[in-house]
Amino acid sequence: MTTTLAVDCMGGDHGPRVTLAACRHFLEAHPEAQLLLVGQPDALASFQHPRARVVPATEVVAMDDAVEVALRKKKDSSLRVAIQQVKTGDAQAAVSAGNTGALMAVARYVLKTLDGIDRPAIASPLPNAKGGSTTVLDLGANVDCTEQHLLQFAVMGSALVSALSGSDSPSVGLLNIGEEVIKGSEVIKKASELLRTAGATGDLNFFGNVEGNDIFKGTTDIVVCDGFVGNVALKSSEGVASLIVGFLKEEARRNIFTTMAAMAAYPVLAALKKRIDHRRYNGAALLGLRGLVFKSHGSADELGFEHALNRAYDAARNNLLDRVQARIAHARPLLSGPEGDAQPLEAATT
Amino acid sequence: MTTTLAVDCMGGDHGPRVTLAACRHFLEAHPEAQLLLVGQPDALASFQHPRARVVPATEVVAMDDAVEVALRKKKDSSLRVAIQQVKTGDAQAAVSAGNTGALMAVARYVLKTLDGIDRPAIASPLPNAKGGSTTVLDLGANVDCTEQHLLQFAVMGSALVSALSGSDSPSVGLLNIGEEVIKGSEVIKKASELLRTAGATGDLNFFGNVEGNDIFKGTTDIVVCDGFVGNVALKSSEGVASLIVGFLKEEARRNIFTTMAAMAAYPVLAALKKRIDHRRYNGAALLGLRGLVFKSHGSADELGFEHALNRAYDAARNNLLDRVQARIAHARPLLSGPEGDAQPLEAATT
Repeated sequence: MTTTLAVDCMGGDHGPRVTLAACRHFLEAHPEAQLLLVGQPDALASFQHPRARVVPATEVVAMDDAVEVALRKKKDSSLRVAIQQVKTGDAQAAVSAGNTGALMAVARYVLKTLDGIDRPAIASPLPNAKGGSTTVLDLGANVDCTEQHLLQFAVMGSALVSALSGSDSPSVGLLNIGEEVIKGSEVIKKASELLRTAGATGDLNFFGNVEGNDIFKGTTDIVVCDGFVGNVALKSSEGVASLIVGFLKEEARRNIFTTMAAMAAYPVLAALKKRIDHRRYNGAALLGLRGLVFKSHGSADELGFEHALNRAYDAARNNLLDRVQARIAHARPLLSGPEGDAQPLEAATT
Repeated sequence: MTTTLAVDCMGGDHGPRVTLAACRHFLEAHPEAQLLLVGQPDALASFQHPRARVVPATEVVAMDDAVEVALRKKKDSSLRVAIQQVKTGDAQAAVSAGNTGALMAVARYVLKTLDGIDRPAIASPLPNAKGGSTTVLDLGANVDCTEQHLLQFAVMGSALVSALSGSDSPSVGLLNIGEEVIKGSEVIKKASELLRTAGATGDLNFFGNVEGNDIFKGTTDIVVCDGFVGNVALKSSEGVASLIVGFLKEEARRNIFTTMAAMAAYPVLAALKKRIDHRRYNGAALLGLRGLVFKSHGSADELGFEHALNRAYDAARNNLLDRVQARIAHARPLLSGPEGDAQPLEAATT
C-alpha cells in the first residue's frame, strides 16, 4: 500500500520555502511515497510532482498565535486541514512545523485520544553516547502527570521505538533523581511500582529508575517523565550545548594562533557538529491520538524538516498506530479507566 | 575577626589525601583564615600548620551509607563533628565532600532550620554564557515543593548571591516550561504570583519565568525550582557536556590526521575545558540552616575541594547567615507559618 503524508507547508518560521524544498528531496528519496501539500494554493503553485498534490487551506496559524485562535478562529488553517487528511484516511500521517501548543490542541480536537489514553504526549529522540538516540517523553504537553499518565507514556514510547527501530522490546527508564527506590516524588514512587508491575506482566521492558545524565549515556532506549521535567531537561541540554559551542567559538577567535588552530581542527569540529546536529533528531511524535502527527521544530531548515518527514513516513509504514493500540490494549488491566479528566480543550470547542 | 572553617577531612571519594592538600593551599592563599581539621587523628597527623588544628572524630560516614546510619549510628563521624563546630560557634562554616543525603540530614538535625524556613535547599553555581555563573536551587534536597518553598528558595538564593557576588539585588528567575504566564504546573503558577508579589514589596528582584536554557544563557543571577526538576536539569546538563567531550575525543582519535588536527587545536580545547571545568563551580551551599554548611562534590580533586573551601570562606566572611536571616525576616509577611511539615528526620532521631 502506498503511504501518504499530509504536510502543513505553511507552518514553521520559514514556511513553503523550506517545507517545499524538503518535500522535493523526500519524494526523490522515497519513490513510493505520496504527499498532500496543504496550504495556500498560490504559495504552493510552483511545486509540480506526479506524486504530490495540493490540498487548499486558506488560513495559516502563526507561530505566536494563541491556542484558542488556532482552535476556534482559524478553522481552515493548513495545520488543521493537514490533520483532517489523517482523520479522513487520505493520509497516514501529518507533519507540521507549526507551534506546538496549537498543533497538540488541534490534533487532539480533530483526532481525539485513543481508548485508555488520558493525555497525548510529545516524544522526541535525543543523541546518546552509544551513537544512537534515546527517546524521551513527555517533552512538554502535560504537566502535573499522575503515575497512570507515566505508565501510558511508557507504553506509547515502547510502541514508537519498536516501530522506528525494529526492536521488539525497547528498554524503558523512569526519570528520577536517584537510583534508590526511596528517592523521588510521591508520583514517581508510585509510577516506579506501576512500571515494575507492567514489566512483570510483559507489557514493558522496564529497566528501573534513571537520572538526567542517563538520557545522554543511552542507558535505556526510552526515558519517561512528566512534561514539565522533560521540557526542562531538553531546554537545559540545549542550553549547555549552545554554551559549549559558544565558548569554543570565542576561544578560537581569541587570536591569530587560536584561529589557525581551530582551522586545523576543522575536520574534528565539523564531525562533532554533525554528531550533535539537532536537525538529525528533528521530528517529535504526538502519541496517544487516533492518528499519526509529527511535529518539526519551528526553526527547522530543509534538512531538519526532511528528517521529520522521514520519521513520520517510517512510523506510518511500520504501523505505529496499530502498535500503540495493541500495546495499550495489552496493558489495559493496568491502565485505570477515564479519570474524569475534564479535557478542557475539547469541552471548550464543542 | 578571624574566620574559621571546620573541614570534614575524611569525606569524599579520596579522603585526607585530597582534603589536606586543598587545606594547605587554602591556608597559603588566605593568611587570616583558620581551619579545624576534623577526622581520625592518625590520618591527619602529617598535617602541621600554625593556623590549623585537629578536632578528633572516630568515625567516617561512607559515601554509600544510608542516611539513617549517618544520623543514628555514627554519632562521632567527621561529618557530624564538623557541623557541631558550627553549632558551638567554634567555626563559622563547615565543609564536607561526604554524601549529600547524610550531610543534609545531619546538618538539619544538628543545626535546625531557620525561622520561616520549612526545608533547607541546596544551591550551586553553574557556568553561563556571560562568563559568570547562575546560582540554581534547589538541586535535589526537596521534592514536591509548594509555592511557599519556592519563595523561600528565592529569598535564600538572593542572600547567597549577594553575599558572594556583592550585588545587592540579584535577579531571580522561576524555572518554567514557557515564558507565558499560562504555562506550567499548578504550583508554578501560584509560585509565579507569589514571587511577583515579593518583587513588588521589595523582597526580591523577580525577573519572571525562565526556561532551562536560560540557566546557561545567564538570563538571571538565580534560578529557582523544585529539587526534582533542578536535579534533573543538573544531571542532564552534565550528561550533554560529557557527551560532547566524548564525541570530540572520539572524532580526534579517528585517524592520524584528526589526531594531529586536535593537537594543533590544543590551546583552544584546553581553554574550553577550563571554562566548563566543573571544579571551578564546586561548593554547593546548604541554605536555610542555623549555620553555614557547604558541600563539595564527592569526587572533587584538590582544586575542586579548594574551591568549595573558598566559597564557604567568602560566605562566612560576608555574613551569609545574617543576610539570609535578615531577608527572611523582611519577607516574613509573605511566608506562611510552619505548615505542619512532619520533619521526619528530626522526629525519627529525637
